[in-house]
Amino acid sequence: MFRWKPDTTPEQVAAIEEGLAALPGAIDTVRSFRFGGDAGINEGNFDFVVTADFDDRDGYLVYRDHPAHMAVVVERIRPQIADRAAVQFEH
Amino acid sequence: MFRWKPDTTPEQVAAIEEGLAALPGAIDTVRSFRFGGDAGINEGNFDFVVTADFDDRDGYLVYRDHPAHMAVVVERIRPQIADRAAVQFEH
Repeated sequence: MFRWKPDTTPEQVAAIEEGLAALPGAIDTVRSFRFGGDAGINEGNFDFVVTADFDDRDGYLVYRDHPAHMAVVVERIRPQIADRAAVQFEH
Repeated sequence: MFRWKPDTTPEQVAAIEEGLAALPGAIDTVRSFRFGGDAGINEGNFDFVVTADFDDRDGYLVYRDHPAHMAVVVERIRPQIADRAAVQFEH
């Protein structure tokens, strides 16, 4: 989950979404992949969330360290981050 | 996602997990429900995550405001929260 900076624009968020949308096709360990902006139902929420499923820890690591993912993170997401919360879990 | 307090015990987390596990059977708008502790792969993560799917916004609101959910939140989760991050999103 992310909070964007106060000056993050809708165009910058659209570029993030475009970048994320390409990742499942580019990284073959991704089993499911969902992302989106907060629906505005509750106060105090973060702004955006990404969820992804992998078969196992190694599948996640392939995604985490994949150049296509890193490019989206470094070029589009990281410059807009005011706050970030992350968990990896097994279920 | 949650960060637990420094003095939160494994028994308190187990009671949270036990409480959460009962919710899909108690609240009929829940379509999928997953939760778990962070796997310890990355530094700086939160401690615990809950993800849930509903057909629509109204289905989420039934869950959010259901007495079974509120009891787990108020009695088991909230006392252990050091930090919380949440998003509701449509996909």
